[in-house]
Amino acid sequence: MSDRDVVELAKRRGFFFQANDAYGGVAGFHAFGPRGAALKRNVEDAWRDRFVVREGNHEIESPTVVPEEVFAASGHLDTFDDMLVECPECGESHRADHLVEDESDLEDAESLATDAVEDLLADHAVDCPTCGVALAGEAVDEFNLMFETAIGPGSSQTGYLRPETAQGILVEFPRLTEYARNQLPFGVAQVGRSYRNEISPRNSLLRVRELTLAELQQFAAPDGDGPDLTPVADVTLRLYPTAAQERDGEAYVELTVREAVDEGVVANPWLAYHLGRAQQWYERVGVDPEQFRFRQHLPGELAHYASACWDAEARLHADWVEIGGFAYRADHDLAKHDAHSDERFTLFREYDDPQVVKRPTVDPDMSYLGPEFGEAAAAVVDALETLAERDPEAFSGDRVTVAVDDETYAIPTEKTGFAVREDTVHGEHVTPHVVEPSIGIDRVVYAVLVHALCRDEVDGEERTRLALPTAVAPTVAGVFPLTDDQADRARDLADRLTRRGLPATYDDSGSIGRRYRRQDEIGTPFCVTLDERTPEDDRATVRDRDTTDQVRVPLADVPETIASLRAGETTFDAVRR
Amino acid sequence: MSDRDVVELAKRRGFFFQANDAYGGVAGFHAFGPRGAALKRNVEDAWRDRFVVREGNHEIESPTVVPEEVFAASGHLDTFDDMLVECPECGESHRADHLVEDESDLEDAESLATDAVEDLLADHAVDCPTCGVALAGEAVDEFNLMFETAIGPGSSQTGYLRPETAQGILVEFPRLTEYARNQLPFGVAQVGRSYRNEISPRNSLLRVRELTLAELQQFAAPDGDGPDLTPVADVTLRLYPTAAQERDGEAYVELTVREAVDEGVVANPWLAYHLGRAQQWYERVGVDPEQFRFRQHLPGELAHYASACWDAEARLHADWVEIGGFAYRADHDLAKHDAHSDERFTLFREYDDPQVVKRPTVDPDMSYLGPEFGEAAAAVVDALETLAERDPEAFSGDRVTVAVDDETYAIPTEKTGFAVREDTVHGEHVTPHVVEPSIGIDRVVYAVLVHALCRDEVDGEERTRLALPTAVAPTVAGVFPLTDDQADRARDLADRLTRRGLPATYDDSGSIGRRYRRQDEIGTPFCVTLDERTPEDDRATVRDRDTTDQVRVPLADVPETIASLRAGETTFDAVRR
Repeated sequence: MSDRDVVELAKRRGFFFQANDAYGGVAGFHAFGPRGAALKRNVEDAWRDRFVVREGNHEIESPTVVPEEVFAASGHLDTFDDMLVECPECGESHRADHLVEDESDLEDAESLATDAVEDLLADHAVDCPTCGVALAGEAVDEFNLMFETAIGPGSSQTGYLRPETAQGILVEFPRLTEYARNQLPFGVAQVGRSYRNEISPRNSLLRVRELTLAELQQFAAPDGDGPDLTPVADVTLRLYPTAAQERDGEAYVELTVREAVDEGVVANPWLAYHLGRAQQWYERVGVDPEQFRFRQHLPGELAHYASACWDAEARLHADWVEIGGFAYRADHDLAKHDAHSDERFTLFREYDDPQVVKRPTVDPDMSYLGPEFGEAAAAVVDALETLAERDPEAFSGDRVTVAVDDETYAIPTEKTGFAVREDTVHGEHVTPHVVEPSIGIDRVVYAVLVHALCRDEVDGEERTRLALPTAVAPTVAGVFPLTDDQADRARDLADRLTRRGLPATYDDSGSIGRRYRRQDEIGTPFCVTLDERTPEDDRATVRDRDTTDQVRVPLADVPETIASLRAGETTFDAVRR
Repeated sequence: MSDRDVVELAKRRGFFFQANDAYGGVAGFHAFGPRGAALKRNVEDAWRDRFVVREGNHEIESPTVVPEEVFAASGHLDTFDDMLVECPECGESHRADHLVEDESDLEDAESLATDAVEDLLADHAVDCPTCGVALAGEAVDEFNLMFETAIGPGSSQTGYLRPETAQGILVEFPRLTEYARNQLPFGVAQVGRSYRNEISPRNSLLRVRELTLAELQQFAAPDGDGPDLTPVADVTLRLYPTAAQERDGEAYVELTVREAVDEGVVANPWLAYHLGRAQQWYERVGVDPEQFRFRQHLPGELAHYASACWDAEARLHADWVEIGGFAYRADHDLAKHDAHSDERFTLFREYDDPQVVKRPTVDPDMSYLGPEFGEAAAAVVDALETLAERDPEAFSGDRVTVAVDDETYAIPTEKTGFAVREDTVHGEHVTPHVVEPSIGIDRVVYAVLVHALCRDEVDGEERTRLALPTAVAPTVAGVFPLTDDQADRARDLADRLTRRGLPATYDDSGSIGRRYRRQDEIGTPFCVTLDERTPEDDRATVRDRDTTDQVRVPLADVPETIASLRAGETTFDAVRR
């Protein structure tokens, strides 16, 4: 089904819609209606369960308005740009690299310099998509995608709306490492709003200016063992590595997590671990595994902070669209903050046993070196110090020879004051490396809706069905009285379900068929009908959305049955048996 | 305990701390550490359960960046200001009204005009709190508290970070009313970040620039019956109405919700209903009812949109601090958006039966009126139309008399074309009224921490105890092995609890006493110890934080017991019996 079908249903049924529509709306800003907000929250909770709770990670909440210094250090101020060209005629702004890609067979114009893209606009005779005027000769500029604001009155400070939640974690590393008792590895997560002042937002929930990211910063020792892969070792990944992309058209590589690591396709074991966890999570929330892959970034495509990156991609209306990124950020961010701020962004790793380190040192006799070498004496001292560190063996003879400015100096070893000091060292400062699973929640919600929406036939009648997984559906059960006599009991059941955390909706309007259709369209997995037999046998009919199969269940057992189905502890087939 | 005690504990134990500290931080921006984020989320979930789920209300998510037109309509652009005075010497910005209040016995300087506050700065010889220079003669300006930003490149649009979540609901009313099937009353809620560019932020979580609000817009018919008060009728409210405030020092009025409505102390029944619900909720999440009151706004204090307002206030370190507002916004916002936007912000209320409405009309015979009255004819027609509407009986005789400009005109009734038309009307457009419970989540979290933190003695040893309610504590159980043999079983139990949504922490370091102290300080209500007897009797010792009472529980029952305690279905005393 098309984007238009999804958008129409989303608006009519309260999943999402353009915000501030009464004032014409603003491109790139959407609101989630009651059903969309519930679906989104369920997707976020499933992420939290998978990447925070079950992994024993920490979750924090940091501000969305961030002072300039942080993004000066992280590099976002300099490099978080898109290429902008403005139409000289109508004044509309466009992504210059996208225009060039649309008119050529280039796939990665973003990695080019602005003047190269200017040339390509001319070479390919690109016109303004809005008014048709030629863009050849127009300037292509870098436009920073962060929203800027002023903090406080008067002598105000510049702030930016965060383009990712990650920096809010990374900048607090010195404190977070204390909460983790200074033990690596540990992970810190954040779910929250992020902002990208897109040049030309479009495509409903796909290219938006305000979005929700769910990000985990996995801190690990640079020389560490990596995680225990056992829990995800057998998860199969559909991988699209750079090699396959370069040999265009080559089939995907299907490998288990273990194989991907062993064969070096996903070199970093932490990255591979989280690809496995993500694969499980995407499936659980309703991304169709048949329309899903992990694509490795081409070298020119990597973000300024990433050493390696795999995108999670979903096929949506024939296009492959990024719905998550899995970056190996190495020590990029922590090293930058360490250099720019007043605090240390390292972790002190204590040795199991203190180590005795031998430090060769010199303490030259200046009353000899001064008169002997005159102006060169200071340079000779430096040379001796360097030599002691590099090659202490050089001090084993009677004389030591060093070269300074093409001149050679020989010094009696006894005059160098050479000695080997023994220091006891208790540990070392380590800058952890970071692997970052980053999930665009809005895009996942959109992908789930696209993959779920279908039309099929029931009893010769066409129906619209939203096949959302039971785990994330906004409403888990529709509860219907077939007769007026059953209305109170049905209302009571719907209330009991809802209060137990199983959102249920009561509906007594129209035929049962129409009520089913209504629930099918909003993705409610189960409908419970109380009919004229209910007072006699104390049972209700539970109907499965996808198969339309039915089963009669004791009324008292309905909440427990629905709860088990929601938690994935049983299946409808098992309940029927 | 002091603010300093709370802030110190909060930082050391990961509740909250100034954000971006490595770069000196920015006043008014805080981050929640792992424990604070969990506590905050639990407080939000409890709010959602109380004000959304159990009330059958809708919840949405709208953008935080909002185009200017919305706030032009709502009035925030003009009136969401604070009074600013800048020091001529050091350049520091201050709230002029606060400075005046500090130096006088005025309590509500905010309601004064800027020039009156300028005069007061001089009269009371107010000095700059930063550098001590006199502020007499300095200009006091209105400073708008909304953060401003530019949306998109080039011909960009002005946007503001929302100062409240409410407008995101109100501006979508035309759509939301469809989702509610056009039936009043209905409620729409939102929980999310909001922003106030405070002139001088201070007091840890109390006066911040980025905050989380939980707001409900309760839409109701202006002439409706109000809610069924039964569920909250007997909830006792401690009220501090304007009359008591004006007679300074008068005791509070303690009334049930029913009494408050019947006696007219809280005139609006929807407002009274939500005060009752809020009272229950504040208690549940840990605000001490003995240090809590609802204070009615004085007339000069009301926000520009409010017809009436009660603040929820908590006593924190001897001050009364607002931790929620309950405003009757009447039709203020919907009427404004109706006037400013292209859509109608009304709800069409269909009558049960179509009504036949009689409309008296006139259709004067101008060929008679023209020659007869000359220049006065048009005015006579107007007068006849008005008369027909006001007093159709006047047309029952042979002649009708109207007065125009002190002159009286008599017209034969047959020449007026008087008739009574009958129109069938199916319903009417209604602008719903809004009652808004608005909760500042950060302030509630702070109040809960202040009211929970205490020192007491256990076995002659002083301990720091954070008496958080079981329902919202970030960790619900500490699990300790007393011997190494029990480590695996203890770890397994902690895992099982956590996966069941009962966050548990495993701790095997230090003496049992130290482990208890650690959990007491972070507010963990229960500790479970596995000891040398556990392999024999398959039981563990569960210890209650506040009483330090202990009970041995079968190991297999521990998760169920903790779950019941968390859900409030049982008490520790009941478990002991």
